[in-house]
Amino acid sequence: MTAQTTSPTTTRNAPAGHVPAYAAPAASAPLERTTVPRRPVGEHDVLIDIKYAGICHSDIHQARDGWGEGIFPMVPGHEIAGVVAEVGPGVTKFRVGDRVGVGCMVDSCRTCDACRAGLEQYCVKGNVQTYNALDKSGEPTYGGYSRQIVVDEAFTLRIPDGLSLDVAAPLLCAGITTYSPLAHWNAGPGKKVAIVGLGGLGHMAVKIAHAMGAEVTVLSQTLRKKDDGLRLGADHYYATGDDATFEQLAGAFDLIVSTVSAPLPFDRYLGLLKTDGALVNVGAPEEPVSLNVFSLMLQRKTLAGSAIGGIAETQEMLDFCAAHGLGAEIELIGADRINEAYERILASDVRYRFVIDAATI
Amino acid sequence: MTAQTTSPTTTRNAPAGHVPAYAAPAASAPLERTTVPRRPVGEHDVLIDIKYAGICHSDIHQARDGWGEGIFPMVPGHEIAGVVAEVGPGVTKFRVGDRVGVGCMVDSCRTCDACRAGLEQYCVKGNVQTYNALDKSGEPTYGGYSRQIVVDEAFTLRIPDGLSLDVAAPLLCAGITTYSPLAHWNAGPGKKVAIVGLGGLGHMAVKIAHAMGAEVTVLSQTLRKKDDGLRLGADHYYATGDDATFEQLAGAFDLIVSTVSAPLPFDRYLGLLKTDGALVNVGAPEEPVSLNVFSLMLQRKTLAGSAIGGIAETQEMLDFCAAHGLGAEIELIGADRINEAYERILASDVRYRFVIDAATI
Repeated sequence: MTAQTTSPTTTRNAPAGHVPAYAAPAASAPLERTTVPRRPVGEHDVLIDIKYAGICHSDIHQARDGWGEGIFPMVPGHEIAGVVAEVGPGVTKFRVGDRVGVGCMVDSCRTCDACRAGLEQYCVKGNVQTYNALDKSGEPTYGGYSRQIVVDEAFTLRIPDGLSLDVAAPLLCAGITTYSPLAHWNAGPGKKVAIVGLGGLGHMAVKIAHAMGAEVTVLSQTLRKKDDGLRLGADHYYATGDDATFEQLAGAFDLIVSTVSAPLPFDRYLGLLKTDGALVNVGAPEEPVSLNVFSLMLQRKTLAGSAIGGIAETQEMLDFCAAHGLGAEIELIGADRINEAYERILASDVRYRFVIDAATI
Repeated sequence: MTAQTTSPTTTRNAPAGHVPAYAAPAASAPLERTTVPRRPVGEHDVLIDIKYAGICHSDIHQARDGWGEGIFPMVPGHEIAGVVAEVGPGVTKFRVGDRVGVGCMVDSCRTCDACRAGLEQYCVKGNVQTYNALDKSGEPTYGGYSRQIVVDEAFTLRIPDGLSLDVAAPLLCAGITTYSPLAHWNAGPGKKVAIVGLGGLGHMAVKIAHAMGAEVTVLSQTLRKKDDGLRLGADHYYATGDDATFEQLAGAFDLIVSTVSAPLPFDRYLGLLKTDGALVNVGAPEEPVSLNVFSLMLQRKTLAGSAIGGIAETQEMLDFCAAHGLGAEIELIGADRINEAYERILASDVRYRFVIDAATI
């Protein structure tokens, strides 16, 4: 950082260097309006006026300290879309006024094999998460439920003109989390892909897999959202609550992407794969799951996991979504409804992503 | 089949069309000398004078009806090396006197996607196992603990001149079972490969992975066989009974091939993989295993299984082993010691494969 950098624009009577935000003051406490500090704009930083922030299920989990060791007060939010308000002197990729996004990471070691391969999400030293983490200087990071954020340009994404910022925001987590495994495991023409769960992640997985040219099947507990699923791009829709589904679809898929965090009966789902098929988890239950190794051996199947995506791949995803006109299906809310939204998400009552209008923060 | 085919050569007073063999007369009964029928040599069949038959752990399992529904009397043996004694009129690949092998399969549907892709081991209609199965005409198949066998040339392998038949026999199961995943998951120069278990499969995995150019580590319960492991081609040897091993080798491997049938603590072993690493099981515990999906997600790791290999790949493996001078480490026994060998295998008292001298059957 240089001495010449400026502080974030002060808005709504926030103290100097602070910006308005919604934060959980303590584990499981409701989120409330507050202010949080943002660092001065450094050499390679951009200051972003946040316009929209998506609400991811993991926000709730962390705000309620579900994984433990949460850093409070906590400002969740890693699906951020906004406009560049200021750039540091060394910034080369962005200018004031550019439409940009920030996802789940704001830094990484940049030197390990994973980082050098563009897989910053798998940084072996641990990347810096957008919130509920400490940055390299030891300061807590605060996320997107906020009016502004300061981020290194290397972890800032460009949102193409074709994408509205509100429906683009959820792409920064839900989009890349599903795009990455679909791309890595070669979803495309001639491939049969199943998406387990039609929620925030699942609905993007359906849109993206369809746009990639795959034949897409939704596997959901019931047929309640079938019309939505087909409208979003699915070719088929089956209820996993119906045992006949598992007989009917035995050996049907090249790839299954599970977006749910409920523990699946893996042996049954592995039975739906073809030879060399993969069942990839982007949602994960907290408790251990069990499976029979024969379910993998007998047809050389794989059980895998995938977490978000690298920075270059996230840009690729945004460009892909813009080219195919893919945004998230959202319900736009004011910040005063964040706590209500949390309850509705836990009750699976959202189609398909809440997005906070940051102007209301 | 044609009417012109002849019957197997009758030896040692076996009834016409029968050949001497060692069989388990019933589940868990000791194996004893008997005779079993062999079909007349058909249009595309070869009659093989068996010279050697390896004893695979799964022979014991099946002879004791560990998986249920065993067909008795049962003649185990799917690691067969011998010499062609007769060929059917339509046979084009082999001549009398050729050195040949037979592995775990003697037929498959030949029409499904897997079969057409050379993955007969994953035939979706189920291939015909060399023993303890029914062939397409509904007759039981009998394995290699026998003086002769009749096999379709399409499921007969050529054993290159550079390989002695005795040390080649175990390659037909232990060799291909380890070669296939090592090749599929790209073991080779620059790759760090761990082999879990140094038994019949494991010792071949070490030899093959080393010959492929990988840096090979053996992970065994103790250091008891360390000298052997290093002699066979391992670069490193660690005891998994020592907790320090899992700290020391965290994130070390591109590929782990587990050859053991004991249930592994998968989360710990997955922790030994690099980003994008794979833990592939060729041995499988019968009980379900448990793991935390986060162990897969956080570095895009995969848990997979693999079963033997296709016919073309088995030939490729035999040619590879001949080119690199790789045979199994064997203890040659007379057929009267089969039951004793079974007990010694169960006590892990074999280095590293028992091979039956078929002349003693």
